[in-house]
Amino acid sequence: MSKLTDVPKRILIGRALRSDRLAETLLPKRIALPVFASDPLSSVAYAPGEVLLVLSIAGVSAYHFAPWIAVAVVVLMFTVVASYRQNVHAYPSGGGDYEVATTNLGPKAGLTVASALLVDYVLTVAVSISSGVENLGSAIPFIVENKVLCAVGIIVLLTLMNLRGVKESGKLFAIPTYVFVSSVFLLIAWGAFRGLVLGDSMKAPTSDLHIEPEHQGIAGFALVFLLLRTFSSGCAALTGVEAISNGVPAFRKPKSKNAATTLALMGVFAVSMFCGIIGLALATDVHMAENPAKDLLRDGVPVGADYVQNPVISQVAAAVFGDGTFFFVLLAAATALVLFLAANTAYNGFPVLGSILAQDRYLPRQLHTRGDRLAFSNGIVLLAGAAILLVWIYGADSTRLIQLYIVGVFVSFTLSQTGMVRHWNRHLATERDPATRRRMIRSRAINAFGAFFTGLVLVVVLITKFEHGAWVSLVGMVIFYAVMTAVRKHYDRVSEEIAAPEGPSDDTLRPSRVHSVVLVSKIHRPTLRALAYAKLMRSDTLEALSVNVDPAETKALRAEWERRGIDVPLKVLDSPYREITRPVIEYVKSLRKESPRDAVSVIIPEYVVGHWYEQLLHNQSALRLKGRLLFTPGIMVTSVPYQLQSSEVARKRARKQQEWNAPGSVRRGPAQERPKETDAQR
Amino acid sequence: MSKLTDVPKRILIGRALRSDRLAETLLPKRIALPVFASDPLSSVAYAPGEVLLVLSIAGVSAYHFAPWIAVAVVVLMFTVVASYRQNVHAYPSGGGDYEVATTNLGPKAGLTVASALLVDYVLTVAVSISSGVENLGSAIPFIVENKVLCAVGIIVLLTLMNLRGVKESGKLFAIPTYVFVSSVFLLIAWGAFRGLVLGDSMKAPTSDLHIEPEHQGIAGFALVFLLLRTFSSGCAALTGVEAISNGVPAFRKPKSKNAATTLALMGVFAVSMFCGIIGLALATDVHMAENPAKDLLRDGVPVGADYVQNPVISQVAAAVFGDGTFFFVLLAAATALVLFLAANTAYNGFPVLGSILAQDRYLPRQLHTRGDRLAFSNGIVLLAGAAILLVWIYGADSTRLIQLYIVGVFVSFTLSQTGMVRHWNRHLATERDPATRRRMIRSRAINAFGAFFTGLVLVVVLITKFEHGAWVSLVGMVIFYAVMTAVRKHYDRVSEEIAAPEGPSDDTLRPSRVHSVVLVSKIHRPTLRALAYAKLMRSDTLEALSVNVDPAETKALRAEWERRGIDVPLKVLDSPYREITRPVIEYVKSLRKESPRDAVSVIIPEYVVGHWYEQLLHNQSALRLKGRLLFTPGIMVTSVPYQLQSSEVARKRARKQQEWNAPGSVRRGPAQERPKETDAQR
Repeated sequence: MSKLTDVPKRILIGRALRSDRLAETLLPKRIALPVFASDPLSSVAYAPGEVLLVLSIAGVSAYHFAPWIAVAVVVLMFTVVASYRQNVHAYPSGGGDYEVATTNLGPKAGLTVASALLVDYVLTVAVSISSGVENLGSAIPFIVENKVLCAVGIIVLLTLMNLRGVKESGKLFAIPTYVFVSSVFLLIAWGAFRGLVLGDSMKAPTSDLHIEPEHQGIAGFALVFLLLRTFSSGCAALTGVEAISNGVPAFRKPKSKNAATTLALMGVFAVSMFCGIIGLALATDVHMAENPAKDLLRDGVPVGADYVQNPVISQVAAAVFGDGTFFFVLLAAATALVLFLAANTAYNGFPVLGSILAQDRYLPRQLHTRGDRLAFSNGIVLLAGAAILLVWIYGADSTRLIQLYIVGVFVSFTLSQTGMVRHWNRHLATERDPATRRRMIRSRAINAFGAFFTGLVLVVVLITKFEHGAWVSLVGMVIFYAVMTAVRKHYDRVSEEIAAPEGPSDDTLRPSRVHSVVLVSKIHRPTLRALAYAKLMRSDTLEALSVNVDPAETKALRAEWERRGIDVPLKVLDSPYREITRPVIEYVKSLRKESPRDAVSVIIPEYVVGHWYEQLLHNQSALRLKGRLLFTPGIMVTSVPYQLQSSEVARKRARKQQEWNAPGSVRRGPAQERPKETDAQR
Repeated sequence: MSKLTDVPKRILIGRALRSDRLAETLLPKRIALPVFASDPLSSVAYAPGEVLLVLSIAGVSAYHFAPWIAVAVVVLMFTVVASYRQNVHAYPSGGGDYEVATTNLGPKAGLTVASALLVDYVLTVAVSISSGVENLGSAIPFIVENKVLCAVGIIVLLTLMNLRGVKESGKLFAIPTYVFVSSVFLLIAWGAFRGLVLGDSMKAPTSDLHIEPEHQGIAGFALVFLLLRTFSSGCAALTGVEAISNGVPAFRKPKSKNAATTLALMGVFAVSMFCGIIGLALATDVHMAENPAKDLLRDGVPVGADYVQNPVISQVAAAVFGDGTFFFVLLAAATALVLFLAANTAYNGFPVLGSILAQDRYLPRQLHTRGDRLAFSNGIVLLAGAAILLVWIYGADSTRLIQLYIVGVFVSFTLSQTGMVRHWNRHLATERDPATRRRMIRSRAINAFGAFFTGLVLVVVLITKFEHGAWVSLVGMVIFYAVMTAVRKHYDRVSEEIAAPEGPSDDTLRPSRVHSVVLVSKIHRPTLRALAYAKLMRSDTLEALSVNVDPAETKALRAEWERRGIDVPLKVLDSPYREITRPVIEYVKSLRKESPRDAVSVIIPEYVVGHWYEQLLHNQSALRLKGRLLFTPGIMVTSVPYQLQSSEVARKRARKQQEWNAPGSVRRGPAQERPKETDAQR
């Protein structure tokens, strides 16, 4: 049946690519940076704008808090980067936050982190694509006019690419990421040069707009709350920082050291881009509002629902490079591309995390096998479906989606860092070497500060954003958590039920004799083959069984049986209602009743055909019978396939399908053992 | 997998009913009449209206042709009834037109008839439901205002009822049909009494409307064409007449005689109702137009798009009984109910015909088994889907749908009658008894006239209605014909390919030894059971096979294997990419390569669970592996099921599902042999 459902997929997705050996694909730092950092680096495309947006609630005068918010984000970024540098050294296996939390805080914490990360992957796709569409839209108005459609289209495209099994190449990531980073630095440098050296007055397209504050003269607690909310929004810049800690195995040796260096590099890049853009936005008088239609006034009149509020990065580029210039378009294109790459990282991360969770039996076991196309496909389709739903509901509005975004990230940051503190505590309990101890104490201090700070941010985010959408993320997390717990419970229950008993023998498991029954409808090659095979098996008794659906046919069958002198007795069951399944099941049960300690082997000749529509024309009775027989205890069901000529097609197709390249292979590093340290340490 | 797709069906359709013995349900004539005649009797609800509609194109003056059209329809009706009385005597097996055409004119003619009948069943549903909604709408305006919605709703309801397996009861048909027939006769009698005896002037609601002729002063060839088109529309009264000839086995003995009498009764009823309603319509000045919005004028102004043209039967009832009176509402309700029953007959006929076609291998074989729920369900869903599509496209407008209707009926009438002529010719060639010969010659004359007349009508229908929609039916017939031919070709090709060779032995079919391989992932009860069963089979070699996906697990497996002292050698395959399928397939192939004359038996322990979602959590690797193994020649695949506790649920559900009652059982008569006369005579 799986072949049937495969057909539409197959048509859309096409043939798979030849897999390269994973072991040859270790990443140098210059490639690892773009591969892992497209998500955090690309977030400078929306995070600075969010800061200005939220501040605008208190009017444009509140913009002077922006540098302070930036400073807070920078401090947080360095804290997180420093913390994860400890993770990378302590857990070089690439298990990431899930592994750290599970090992040190127990499975419930681990599962919480996993749920948070799964939600986060969905939001990474939704936010990055929406923001990418907005950036592209600043250069091509059509796109922003059909935002939802374009966003969904791009998600579908990415999904098809990933289902097809893109060979994830480092270069694919490197070029746009470096073009993006260079363009942003050029933007900052050129802006600084024009402003400070040439003394040009650069004006953003929105500089002449007036912001109508939603709350006039905010002060006291309300102001603090607003600043905290602004800070929460700015934290969007930190999403994806943990990616490197999942990808340590993909680095060249020394893996941990290289990963730590890359993390630091990424932190520096992200922070300088973030600050530079906020600085330029303030210098060029960018005006953004949370509800632009209402709160932005041009000559005292609200700009109205038609107004499109371009992202801050494109407004700054318009001011510095000039609207529509080469560099403006280049930056818009590079920004959009990097954002799409960031979304693509979720397509890799989601199934990889799923595979780890499957290994721990929180998800169906078949997700565990790497390169299992079906499993990856299911994960990818689930991810894309959820992302499309969010994009649809929130109208591909990155500002509204970001409200949901940061909860998951900080849940996993906080739990991971708390776990790291425990990790060092445990190691310090046994470690005696003073130098190592000193290093561990330093690491513990860093992680403790990280845990405290990210925990604080989590509380702030929850308080300030709960009603703006953070609850949606929490609901998503609870759903993932509940499903995974249920799956694990099911596996545990089954595993208990089927546990092999100790002791020498178990009577119910050891039948003494076996009766073989070959199902026969007509005498043809498949039947003859099944009979020949059945004879080879030398069971205690062997008979052929036919169901009398049509007396004329049955008579002909008996006659030919005799004529050919087939030396297996032929038994015919009556079936007044022309059924096949019921008489066979009843006969088999009667055999079992006669001699309950014996087993019955039912042998079914089966046609193997090449196309799903041929499958519809054959084997349907056999399939149904098999399905029913499986519920009857003390039975084994044997298919003796007969390959029709057309089956060759399907065999070739299946072989090709096997050579499919799972996404995420580059990010995850070459196939290798996941060290069992975790179990040993528990 | 079939369980998975079953779940939504199951939720909608619920549990099946207990089947009664078919043999106890032979029908007396008084029940057989309503069971088989609801379709032709109900057509008096729309056929008279169609006659007036088409005539109105030439203006209200053309209405005086209506009685002549009625006479022509009556003559045709008697011809067809007389012809089918011959069929019923000659073919008491209930094969119907398909059997008659196949036996006497060859398989291509038979297949044409079958295609025509299948299209016809779809149209029976579409037309009857649409007309029923219109009739009901004459009493309840809401219904006619939401025509498409109501029609689709009723189709869905009928579909669910039939999927659930209604026990088709004769009484279910008898009461509404007799209420309908009595009401119509009462209408005619009361109308005649009021008009002729009391001299009342009865006026239909539309009597004061003026008809604007589309073509003024039509004459000559145009008039003939219009009259022929009118006649074609009136022929809608004949649809379903052939039903009795399919249902002879359901009659009490003497079957053929009773069936013939019922046919005659039905003809008399249908004809008198048809003429009576046309007569009353003319007497009460019913005015109907093909495009009422444009061509009906009230006080010189077109009535406009909002105008609802009620069916002629309800207009007459309004005139005779008075609008909204008890008898008016009773007639409207009975009419609608009979029309819905007529639609329901298609739900029975479609899968029954499908089962006969499957027996002749024009459709998938599994449709052959009577009471095969899955097969019937597929047929029913196909029928309902096509009918809903038509209702949707044609806006549930019975007038537009009738344009498509009559082609299929007359194709099968004509071919069936032509076949009967051949039948008598063949019998006359050998028959020597003068009395019998005389009877045969008489029958042949009747059938020859029937063939000629229905053939003529078919030509007329095709010419006059082709561009009005008859082409749609033809396209549908061609599609059915093509699909069935392709299916038959496939079966023939396969049957040739697998035909058992004559002669003593065939080397490729007779392996000399068998290697058994038990797949093992862990040691638990299912594995132990599979090993125990495998040992019982005493194959030439036996080994356990495990795939090394996780070295730690493999090591543990080896250790336990040794500790338990399992006396089957354990072979472990390496799998650097954590795959399971590929290494196993390759190993099995290597076994086959070493000794090509031997067979390999792969034994797979399998969990049996109760719910589809549990199925998702288990056996997926095993399923995929099995799927691949089937394509490898020289292999047999054995499942050793291990029933988990939860499987009990599924076992019970499957057992209940088996006790399902196939629709169409009453109409088709008790299960019995289909006589093989057809083959013998060919």
